[in-house]
Amino acid sequence: MADSQAEQDEEGLDPRRVAAILQAIEVGQAGVLRGLLGQMHPADVADLLEQIGPSAREGLLALAAGVLDGAVLSELEEGLREEVISALPREALAAAVRSLDTDDVVDLLEDLGAPQQGMILEALEASDRFAVEQALGYPEGSAGRLMQREVVAVPEHWTVGEATDHLRSAKSLPDQFYHVLLVDPRMRPVGYATLGRILSSGREVRLRDILEDSFRTIEATMPEGDVAYLFNQYHLISCPVVQNGGRLVGVITIDDAMAVLDEEAGEDMLLLAGVGEDSAMSDGPLATVKQRLPWLVVNLFTASISAFVISRFEGTIAMIVSLAAVMPIVASTGGIGGTQSLAVSVRALATRDLTRANAARVVRRELVAGLLNGLGLAVILGIGGAVIYGDYRLGVVLGLAMIVNQIVAAFGGVMVPLTLERAGLDPALASGTFVTTLTDVMGYLAFLGLATVMMT
Amino acid sequence: MADSQAEQDEEGLDPRRVAAILQAIEVGQAGVLRGLLGQMHPADVADLLEQIGPSAREGLLALAAGVLDGAVLSELEEGLREEVISALPREALAAAVRSLDTDDVVDLLEDLGAPQQGMILEALEASDRFAVEQALGYPEGSAGRLMQREVVAVPEHWTVGEATDHLRSAKSLPDQFYHVLLVDPRMRPVGYATLGRILSSGREVRLRDILEDSFRTIEATMPEGDVAYLFNQYHLISCPVVQNGGRLVGVITIDDAMAVLDEEAGEDMLLLAGVGEDSAMSDGPLATVKQRLPWLVVNLFTASISAFVISRFEGTIAMIVSLAAVMPIVASTGGIGGTQSLAVSVRALATRDLTRANAARVVRRELVAGLLNGLGLAVILGIGGAVIYGDYRLGVVLGLAMIVNQIVAAFGGVMVPLTLERAGLDPALASGTFVTTLTDVMGYLAFLGLATVMMT
Repeated sequence: MADSQAEQDEEGLDPRRVAAILQAIEVGQAGVLRGLLGQMHPADVADLLEQIGPSAREGLLALAAGVLDGAVLSELEEGLREEVISALPREALAAAVRSLDTDDVVDLLEDLGAPQQGMILEALEASDRFAVEQALGYPEGSAGRLMQREVVAVPEHWTVGEATDHLRSAKSLPDQFYHVLLVDPRMRPVGYATLGRILSSGREVRLRDILEDSFRTIEATMPEGDVAYLFNQYHLISCPVVQNGGRLVGVITIDDAMAVLDEEAGEDMLLLAGVGEDSAMSDGPLATVKQRLPWLVVNLFTASISAFVISRFEGTIAMIVSLAAVMPIVASTGGIGGTQSLAVSVRALATRDLTRANAARVVRRELVAGLLNGLGLAVILGIGGAVIYGDYRLGVVLGLAMIVNQIVAAFGGVMVPLTLERAGLDPALASGTFVTTLTDVMGYLAFLGLATVMMT
Repeated sequence: MADSQAEQDEEGLDPRRVAAILQAIEVGQAGVLRGLLGQMHPADVADLLEQIGPSAREGLLALAAGVLDGAVLSELEEGLREEVISALPREALAAAVRSLDTDDVVDLLEDLGAPQQGMILEALEASDRFAVEQALGYPEGSAGRLMQREVVAVPEHWTVGEATDHLRSAKSLPDQFYHVLLVDPRMRPVGYATLGRILSSGREVRLRDILEDSFRTIEATMPEGDVAYLFNQYHLISCPVVQNGGRLVGVITIDDAMAVLDEEAGEDMLLLAGVGEDSAMSDGPLATVKQRLPWLVVNLFTASISAFVISRFEGTIAMIVSLAAVMPIVASTGGIGGTQSLAVSVRALATRDLTRANAARVVRRELVAGLLNGLGLAVILGIGGAVIYGDYRLGVVLGLAMIVNQIVAAFGGVMVPLTLERAGLDPALASGTFVTTLTDVMGYLAFLGLATVMMT
């Protein structure tokens, strides 16, 4: 109890602890540093490595690389793994990876260069190495990569007592398991019983009489995003993975599915904002520029389309200069409207709330909502513009342009991601730029076009 | 096995099934409809209710409300619960809520009006009603609301055999449990053992000798976002909830934490885009307008600040009309740069990757990255502008304004959410509008100001 209470106090990164660690690195107290790191959860040690600066990280690795275990490596963000692994003494690395389950080793290996992959594979025992190499045979981001190969499976005719005796005599069991799987003679899973049901049933009860209703299986080739969706939708805790006509090859547990769900939500948010999905807080300025500049350059060119549209109306602007001041209002409000519709649609596609069953209705709803939003904004902006500039025609032009642009915005915000999805692309990818380019161009075109017709 | 295989084929919403259901509603075949719905997982029935139109939903409820069980109600999005509950016959509602665990009843009640809350509370058995009312005493969005009150806890000195006998003789056990909790005589949890460890240990083994290292407890008042973070960070499967000096009051399981994590990621994305967090695909146009128009109106006024800034330079624009065409490029690219920095920062705050330990370093990185991005864009835009308009001064003005605005964008993108977070507010809230207003105003000001100085 004393131990667990101490652990409680150390949740997350305590600023005082971080200060003490930085101090120990500064003055080179390896013993103190190791002591401090040893009290922390591996996930927090990984966060610490990510959050301290590059020079402090170098100092930490020089003084205390030996205390970093496999769990720290597998918690680290991808960009830092190579750096940390290179700093580990060979024996420390070998010990670290041997302590991991095979699914975590696979996760660790995926993004490393060939030399480091080789070093880690060599460090494994032969049977684990074989399992890891098999897992790497599945496509990246598939259920086969995510699953653990250690499974608890028994013949379908067994009783609670037989299963319990089997578990008690098993040499090694997975770190985590929540079900006992029942398999037929060809190793195809036919159902599972929760450990809770097994524990609370008498020894003579047949496992097949206490199976869960919710049983389902996952194909090894299923994309990990779909796996995460299944876990969240059907409240699964663990799920068998099958291949080649239903043969059991592994099990996925909910904590891995939760990590995938969390990652995918973050990626959608970053992609929508036009940032590379590998962005990390530990990136330096150059890595940050690499993640962002390409998208800014794309936007530079799409923004030039708006500039070209405006330049066609320079004659009108020369006659009424105040048009130049108010025209960005129409474009900017259109951009916000488009972003709203887009964010809702991308999120709904990710959560499978926007499907073929309701796409037509949602598109109609967006059109009507865009019209209503446009009307509301047109009244405010139209009256405001007419009063401030003392010209009712400017009010009418502003109002009409606003209505047109809000309809375009709401429609574009749902159609762009739907179209990308149907084309098999990521609906978040590039859709922000598509939609704001659309609303900018339409905003300037509608406003300046109407102004040219009605005011000159 | 036949059953489970059939269930496999019905994952998610099969378009043919949806079509058959709509057809059955159309022609009023209650029996067929009930049959089709009965084969579906409750989560999929809820999705169906959300995705079909309002009139089809009305038809479905008229024909088959009786087959909707409690699980369907608790899977439904909040906006539709009142509508569906109102359509249920009183006895069907009572049966539905009685089949739920208390944590699901609490989740169901939270957003209902007082009359419906009363109806549901009445339908519960006295002990459950008491438990639900107690849970509603905790703050909304707290661990106390999220937890289930059904726990499996035994004295700390018990053996595996004693715990097993206790479970076998228990009248009712929670639907899901993954640990046996050990409590001291004052009902304070002191550790837990996984069911897997218990099942695989001999009857004479003491539970305290097979406890998990990772044990921690959660205060009943902890915000649910922090709970989700703890589960994801420390790979928890279930965690005891305590109150008043550590007394056990309930347990939170990972599936609830996963649902919270998923919701919060979605909310951040919607808030960043300026959409109310209650937006749902089943909303009609009016509900959609209500979620979005307020934010558009705010943006209308902030956009007017840019218009005001531009209007101060009408003299300059009157002299060189082409400035009006190119000035939105600087503003728009600034908006993208700001949005990139903002999305990365908001996400990092949500995942606790941006903390006091690295805030200063990240702000410095953003400033340098903004400068470098600005330099890169300035070269392209400056040369392009100078060549197209045949005026090197325009190129210089465009380039300088771009550099200034990219630095402002990157800095604002990280400072605005950091400041909101320090002030105890949601860092995603309103920060998009803050940042784009900043980059619009700075973009126009820098560009037109420099142009006035250098070109007139």
